[in-house]
Amino acid sequence: MSSKDTTKLLNQLRHLMKDTSLFNGKQLSAYIIPSTDSHNSEYLCPKDKRRQFISNFSGSAGTALVTENNALLWTDGRYFLQASQELDTNWCLMKDGLPETPSIGEWLCQNLPKHSNVGIDATLYQEELYQNLQTKLNSNNLSLFHTKQNLIDLIWENRPKLNYEPLLQIDSKYTGLTTKEKLLSIRNELTKKSVHSTVVTSLDEIAWLLNIRGHDIPFGAVFFSYLIIDFDSCKLFTNLNRFDDNLKNALNEKDANFEFYEYDEFYNFFENYIRHELVGKSQKILLSSSTNHFIHSLVPINLIQQDLSILAKLKCIKNNCEIESAKKIHIRDSAVLTEFLYKLDWTFKNKELIEKNVLNEHDLAAYLDEMRSQQENFFACSFETIVGYGSNGAIIHYKPKLDENNKKIEKNNFLLIDSGGHYSDMGTTDVTRTVYLGDISTSTEYQKECFTRVLKGHIQLAMRVFPSGTRPELLDSFARQALWEVGLDYRHGTGHGVGALLNVHEVPIIANRKGVEILVNENMVITDEPGYYENEKFGIRIENCNLTVKASTKYQYASNVNFLTFEPLTLVPIQRDLIIKDLLNQQELDWLNNYHEKCFKIISEELKTANKIEVLEWLKEQTLPL
Amino acid sequence: MSSKDTTKLLNQLRHLMKDTSLFNGKQLSAYIIPSTDSHNSEYLCPKDKRRQFISNFSGSAGTALVTENNALLWTDGRYFLQASQELDTNWCLMKDGLPETPSIGEWLCQNLPKHSNVGIDATLYQEELYQNLQTKLNSNNLSLFHTKQNLIDLIWENRPKLNYEPLLQIDSKYTGLTTKEKLLSIRNELTKKSVHSTVVTSLDEIAWLLNIRGHDIPFGAVFFSYLIIDFDSCKLFTNLNRFDDNLKNALNEKDANFEFYEYDEFYNFFENYIRHELVGKSQKILLSSSTNHFIHSLVPINLIQQDLSILAKLKCIKNNCEIESAKKIHIRDSAVLTEFLYKLDWTFKNKELIEKNVLNEHDLAAYLDEMRSQQENFFACSFETIVGYGSNGAIIHYKPKLDENNKKIEKNNFLLIDSGGHYSDMGTTDVTRTVYLGDISTSTEYQKECFTRVLKGHIQLAMRVFPSGTRPELLDSFARQALWEVGLDYRHGTGHGVGALLNVHEVPIIANRKGVEILVNENMVITDEPGYYENEKFGIRIENCNLTVKASTKYQYASNVNFLTFEPLTLVPIQRDLIIKDLLNQQELDWLNNYHEKCFKIISEELKTANKIEVLEWLKEQTLPL
Repeated sequence: MSSKDTTKLLNQLRHLMKDTSLFNGKQLSAYIIPSTDSHNSEYLCPKDKRRQFISNFSGSAGTALVTENNALLWTDGRYFLQASQELDTNWCLMKDGLPETPSIGEWLCQNLPKHSNVGIDATLYQEELYQNLQTKLNSNNLSLFHTKQNLIDLIWENRPKLNYEPLLQIDSKYTGLTTKEKLLSIRNELTKKSVHSTVVTSLDEIAWLLNIRGHDIPFGAVFFSYLIIDFDSCKLFTNLNRFDDNLKNALNEKDANFEFYEYDEFYNFFENYIRHELVGKSQKILLSSSTNHFIHSLVPINLIQQDLSILAKLKCIKNNCEIESAKKIHIRDSAVLTEFLYKLDWTFKNKELIEKNVLNEHDLAAYLDEMRSQQENFFACSFETIVGYGSNGAIIHYKPKLDENNKKIEKNNFLLIDSGGHYSDMGTTDVTRTVYLGDISTSTEYQKECFTRVLKGHIQLAMRVFPSGTRPELLDSFARQALWEVGLDYRHGTGHGVGALLNVHEVPIIANRKGVEILVNENMVITDEPGYYENEKFGIRIENCNLTVKASTKYQYASNVNFLTFEPLTLVPIQRDLIIKDLLNQQELDWLNNYHEKCFKIISEELKTANKIEVLEWLKEQTLPL
Repeated sequence: MSSKDTTKLLNQLRHLMKDTSLFNGKQLSAYIIPSTDSHNSEYLCPKDKRRQFISNFSGSAGTALVTENNALLWTDGRYFLQASQELDTNWCLMKDGLPETPSIGEWLCQNLPKHSNVGIDATLYQEELYQNLQTKLNSNNLSLFHTKQNLIDLIWENRPKLNYEPLLQIDSKYTGLTTKEKLLSIRNELTKKSVHSTVVTSLDEIAWLLNIRGHDIPFGAVFFSYLIIDFDSCKLFTNLNRFDDNLKNALNEKDANFEFYEYDEFYNFFENYIRHELVGKSQKILLSSSTNHFIHSLVPINLIQQDLSILAKLKCIKNNCEIESAKKIHIRDSAVLTEFLYKLDWTFKNKELIEKNVLNEHDLAAYLDEMRSQQENFFACSFETIVGYGSNGAIIHYKPKLDENNKKIEKNNFLLIDSGGHYSDMGTTDVTRTVYLGDISTSTEYQKECFTRVLKGHIQLAMRVFPSGTRPELLDSFARQALWEVGLDYRHGTGHGVGALLNVHEVPIIANRKGVEILVNENMVITDEPGYYENEKFGIRIENCNLTVKASTKYQYASNVNFLTFEPLTLVPIQRDLIIKDLLNQQELDWLNNYHEKCFKIISEELKTANKIEVLEWLKEQTLPL
């Protein structure tokens, strides 16, 4: 089913793997092509989509491995279907997370002869993953090493280049804190941890600290850069052409001691920095385990303090300005999605129209993106809009393309729409609604039950009261219980933090697996997005962004423990006639009716102002109590 | 409040810490006294209660640290109250798990001068803990090392000795599998993991494999031993005096290749074994992270494969014989607790009797133990019986002693009774009931609400349906949600695996923290024990042992995923008149009524056979539908 034949590329790569001149006289028996860039970004600049280039698999997560005779791609449950459609017959899909699937390390140990060499570009691989893999391989007499030249780059003809679009400085009325104030908190943490300095490589963390946004990565609001923070200075490595004096002065106006260097100077500079600033001073540098291995390899091991990124921990707690902004932009974003849903409903109720016009997923996604982009202070989409009709809805992270998968949208099945925006005044949204198109009487009881159970899961998590500092994974099962009861489940996480005009996915992660040690605290924006997917039939997901707020509880168990609950930021109606009312308990029904009342109350004001009376009337109907 | 003055002992210990002749010319700035023995046992043989000897704290978990000027004891939320009562003023209680409490490593780094030495008996400290601590200390220029002589043993006058009681061989009609069959599974795993051998140090794992039980450790059903398993042999290190030819022949009758050595030979033997069998052969030995550090230190690091114990993983899945036995012995054990509760009720309803007789917690615990010990095939109590009246019920692992804490049991408060037994035909029980003594009209609405919410939590977990292979911590929150809703919680785990005439606590652990990577699968015996504790007032806990069984679900989401639920093994009534019925939803009410119906149906048969008609009549009343 793949549209790309990778035979030639794989031959070229295998040829390079045998070229001993590249690897100090060694040959590679296997080459690993990780999913990410040097900053561990989730979304990639086209120039960095190396794994997609070699394998044609376009999902956001997955690692490729090429040996002399095999080409394998590991990816998780969200992408099993998509990968099987995108990979050609050269490739073998390795279904990550299934008990029978070996890890990459296990596969290599089982399949490579002893003393084989495995190559990887270690700037593209997180330290934690690298260490685990290296330990595994070494214990089986295999070697893992960093190839200075990325082999994919060597065979990539016409590799895309980065467009350096202008940067945007964000006013402190939106960010709440100046760079100087954020630096103070960071340096306090450095003091507490008794470390000399830290390196920041996550682009969203740098953008957050600098109160600057960019367009270097699609959906990212970030710009390529590295940062070294110590007590005397803040060394920024970035493209200096667009970093004009205005930006420089703004950063330094309160004596924040910024120094500016070109992006490409970073690794050489850092090597010298370590040698001059750290070695011999018995002081340490804090590196997060998501920092790439090559950076770690430049620091003597006894000088590394590995810990969570200070910036990631500070960033995920939103301040009052960020919260106020988040609320405002969510209203605007919810209004536009509401209008879109109204138009969709109108179109599908107008029989003639739908028979005359052929709607497809790609066009519909483009139409929604266009509507969103017309909003005040729209900055970018926060991820690639998902519009999945019928069976395409079951491909969990399906992105409609202009290819044979791009389904014509017909009546009488589910349509799943997952989308979000960045707004410069200031915030990021992420919302999913699933609607049944056409005549509701054609939907089966089973389809309605699935929809209702996904909704029950959504509500169960949304109304939960829990102690501040709860481990996020402990909240995951609440969203699954209504599905579990009847033997159903979904193969993805339940929620994730959302940045403030920053990455749509940040910590904490609510999922049924071990995660980063970020606990759920007050003033975090976290999604709630259970789903259910039936292969080749349909997909359902209901997702809101919620804010964690103090809950007022009847009792107080301990004076040092606050209880929290969620306040929905997303205000978009959930299709009422798909809900089997008897499956909701009274608490769930109350939650839904209150939610819909709030949607109407707030979004109708927005629609009234814009004089969108028809949408308003439609919203009124959609939000009547059930 | 402590009954022991530790001043003299601490002086003696501090004197030894300065004795450079003991530590190759070094002095110790700090000495760590861990909680456990060389086998990481939870319950200790009196000779191994070193931490209790030096600190007087008798809880099952806690680590002592002594420096020149400080004596500190770290323990967790279950024991805060108990520790504060047992420690004298020499000691500072460090409340583990609270955000403001530093870890031992952090405390040492903050308080010791650089280049100080920290001593520990590394046979008493798990590898994982040792590595974490060593990394922390080394990174702050502190050294951690193993002291060949245990300093506590040097100052412990009249240290108790082990009584070598006879061992019990268990018939394969109870164990389900012979030693030879279990060894086959273990060696299959060794093959899969490509390792040469494994060392087993957990006493319950050895007892499980050998189908032999002992009385070396109170409440343990185990005997002191070490085991080395490779493909040619099984080397057992134990007291050979009581390991007669019968036992030896039984183990070897099917060519299981057992070799027998004295317990004390183990460490020397192991050092030689590693040298001759592993070094130079590029083969590895599997060590679990709960194996003590001294064992790890005897193996070159590149020859260690650290992983979960194969035996622990096999042992926690019960076979059909073990399940049938567990059901049978739970009926017997539930009947005796039912009779005990009947007598308690009768006593407290008989005004004269209670006014004439002074009942205290210690006597009541002894009375229950005596009743249980009269049961057919009683082997031992599976842990020290907890009888906590009123405020003593709030000391989570309170054990009544004949001291000033031993409360007189009066009317009109909660009594918490947590107890269990080992039975030789073959299984282990663990059950908690909380009853309100005296006139129920004196209980407050708040007390009843707390009781009902603990019960709701118990039921929510008990009736849960979830996929086979779920991480145990993901089930924890279900038991807490009814408490969380009103701002209450409890500071202990929610459940644990239970051995088959083996340790009452084994994997998997259901708790709100990271645990060992054992997933919840079919045929495990796991407790369900939420609670609520109000300092200085009362404690409530409701605990059953449940068996994980296949759930029949309406749908089946994927052919390779089974859904599970729990089947109660414990069949003891839950006090009905303490329950606020309106707080239960219909599902919870149905669960309770069905459970009580089952209790009556099964336990009444047992009581009828024993001709205990009065108890039967009482049980009938207690199990009427609510």
